Amino acid sequence: MRTQVCIIGGGPSGLLLAQLLHRDGIDSVILERRERAHVLGRIRAGVLEQGSVDLLRRASLGERMEREGFHHSGTYLAAANRGFRIDFEARVGKSVMVYGQTEVTRDLYAARDAAGGIVIDRAERVTPWGLDSNAPSVTYVRDGREHRVACDFVIGCDGFHGVSRTCIPKDVLREFERVYPFGWLGVLSETPPVSHELIYANHPRGFALCSMRNDNLSRYYVQVQLSDRAEGWTDAAFWDELKRRIPEDAADRLITGPSIEKSIAPLRSYVAEPMRWGRLFLVGDAAHIVPPTGAKGLNLAFSDVHYLHAGLAAHYRDGDDDGIDRYSHRALARVWKCERFSWSMTTMLHRFPDQSPFDQRMQESELAWLETSVAAQTALAENYVGLPY
Amino acid sequence: MRTQVCIIGGGPSGLLLAQLLHRDGIDSVILERRERAHVLGRIRAGVLEQGSVDLLRRASLGERMEREGFHHSGTYLAAANRGFRIDFEARVGKSVMVYGQTEVTRDLYAARDAAGGIVIDRAERVTPWGLDSNAPSVTYVRDGREHRVACDFVIGCDGFHGVSRTCIPKDVLREFERVYPFGWLGVLSETPPVSHELIYANHPRGFALCSMRNDNLSRYYVQVQLSDRAEGWTDAAFWDELKRRIPEDAADRLITGPSIEKSIAPLRSYVAEPMRWGRLFLVGDAAHIVPPTGAKGLNLAFSDVHYLHAGLAAHYRDGDDDGIDRYSHRALARVWKCERFSWSMTTMLHRFPDQSPFDQRMQESELAWLETSVAAQTALAENYVGLPY
Repeated sequence: MRTQVCIIGGGPSGLLLAQLLHRDGIDSVILERRERAHVLGRIRAGVLEQGSVDLLRRASLGERMEREGFHHSGTYLAAANRGFRIDFEARVGKSVMVYGQTEVTRDLYAARDAAGGIVIDRAERVTPWGLDSNAPSVTYVRDGREHRVACDFVIGCDGFHGVSRTCIPKDVLREFERVYPFGWLGVLSETPPVSHELIYANHPRGFALCSMRNDNLSRYYVQVQLSDRAEGWTDAAFWDELKRRIPEDAADRLITGPSIEKSIAPLRSYVAEPMRWGRLFLVGDAAHIVPPTGAKGLNLAFSDVHYLHAGLAAHYRDGDDDGIDRYSHRALARVWKCERFSWSMTTMLHRFPDQSPFDQRMQESELAWLETSVAAQTALAENYVGLPY
Repeated sequence: MRTQVCIIGGGPSGLLLAQLLHRDGIDSVILERRERAHVLGRIRAGVLEQGSVDLLRRASLGERMEREGFHHSGTYLAAANRGFRIDFEARVGKSVMVYGQTEVTRDLYAARDAAGGIVIDRAERVTPWGLDSNAPSVTYVRDGREHRVACDFVIGCDGFHGVSRTCIPKDVLREFERVYPFGWLGVLSETPPVSHELIYANHPRGFALCSMRNDNLSRYYVQVQLSDRAEGWTDAAFWDELKRRIPEDAADRLITGPSIEKSIAPLRSYVAEPMRWGRLFLVGDAAHIVPPTGAKGLNLAFSDVHYLHAGLAAHYRDGDDDGIDRYSHRALARVWKCERFSWSMTTMLHRFPDQSPFDQRMQESELAWLETSVAAQTALAENYVGLPY
């Protein structure tokens, strides 16, 4: 098979890129290792920046999102049992959209199907070839038979554990990493959210987050030790712990119920440089991971898609390679800023094992300052709603 | 001897408080352990917030400062060999005043002398008594003879190592501390400053700061190991190291010369709570220490003086004790915000022994974000010029 752009990974960034390319008349093939049902079943982030919303709209994917998503024009922060609100609209004139990644992915698959896009699932042993040549290709095995996709470009949208990044020679790749000494225990429950906007809580017992998917689907998290196991947490123990960590008025009105999903996710900051090698371009988690505090993961993958789509479109339309040549530089400049924001939110809100009483006061002082400083709120808000592309 | 307010410590905060009280007709006595010449010879900070300037003016101490001080309406930050300016005037409509603490102290002594204020130097074995009674006193020894000052209030302006804080019972006092794993090697030289505004530089080799006292008196610092000794650094080695760490254009125009003072200072964050116990009130370094990054030490002592002076004035004028009763709470609220700022500037700009390449990128990303974000610059500027009292 021959295509112009071979995309490894059928998650939201690969699908969005394919859809945007399609609208420019550029062919692509997506190779996805798992079954489509598995990809669609993943529980992931739920907050979209304005830029991500705009990008989905540009790909004609905004309809259901507009109908079912929730505009959040602010968020709550809490420390020492006191909460306050940061008003995004008032500070920076923008808001965010709460619309689950699961929904985004479903919309994207529907759009790809409607456009007759090729998304090959259960593609095993995906292997790029000739990335440093003018004629790269990708082989894969499906149902025991090997196939080859010849292409102009290979796009690695295959996440942190994917094959794409490993194709960059060790002496070229530079990696930056921070592994946080805790995880998030997340619970999904069919209950009304305790708050219509998110609550990020710093508490001496650890971080907690009240999030939501819709009016009857809540998503809550508490910081736990990495050695904890989700099975070790009963629903009752989870709700008790959550109530202890969020402001009293929120705890009082919290409606609990059985968990329909419960899992522990580790927190990591990671960046690989460069994001382009020869004919290979890395997008999203394949090149960088952020801790979920600040809701940047999917949004950052989408801003990569934005830069890469612009570069590929100019290449095919005008023979202008400036965009693809500068892709890595442009994407990384924004990646590092979002890494900084995610790291600073994580650092400000979590309890660290080696944290001293002074460190705890620094966190509380940071939140106290945020509560009173318009400039500090603006600085946080401009990151939260999304830095410009 | 009897006075209304007995002030332990003849540094700038004790002197300023005495001068402000004097203008309200309130008597004070200052007890200073060292000789006056020693106090006047100390090389200390040089940047005054607008609030500190206003306070000195209110005490009729602004004249020489206005004539000889330098208004700085911005500062430079640098990382990865690139510098940029934060314009305080543009961001928050305020500036800072560069006027050495040595000069402030000299002006304060002159004013105290002119007003016939009592400042007893070489007061040894200063000891407060009856702080939890209505009749406190302070004894001291001078030239081998013991004296006693009976008073209404005892004010501890005697610094981190002074006796005042140690009078607060252990079960009352709560201490918060962070000791940084590096020091500042400072050099004073009679050379024109490399920049008319300060340059704060983050460099993989360590932090550097270009500061100044006047047109022909420069103050430079480089981060060094705590195990280093000032005598181990030749002038040539110092200048070489400084040049390596500041942006190239600054290094190129740096004029070097013999050092007239060279010393290493450790960096510490420290807060003691409460700042009042019975008839004892702590002011400045006696209650809190900030690392010098951000130039908050003297300014924070002066904001304590502001709150305490207001409280004591209301007590004597109106019999209103609200100000002294709330002194600790009010002062500490501002102290913690300034501790946060000093800690964050220190953390952003220094090289830490356990710093990973990721951490280094976080610092550079913070500076890159500051370079482009008006909100981030505003948030920094409002702290740098001084939070409101």
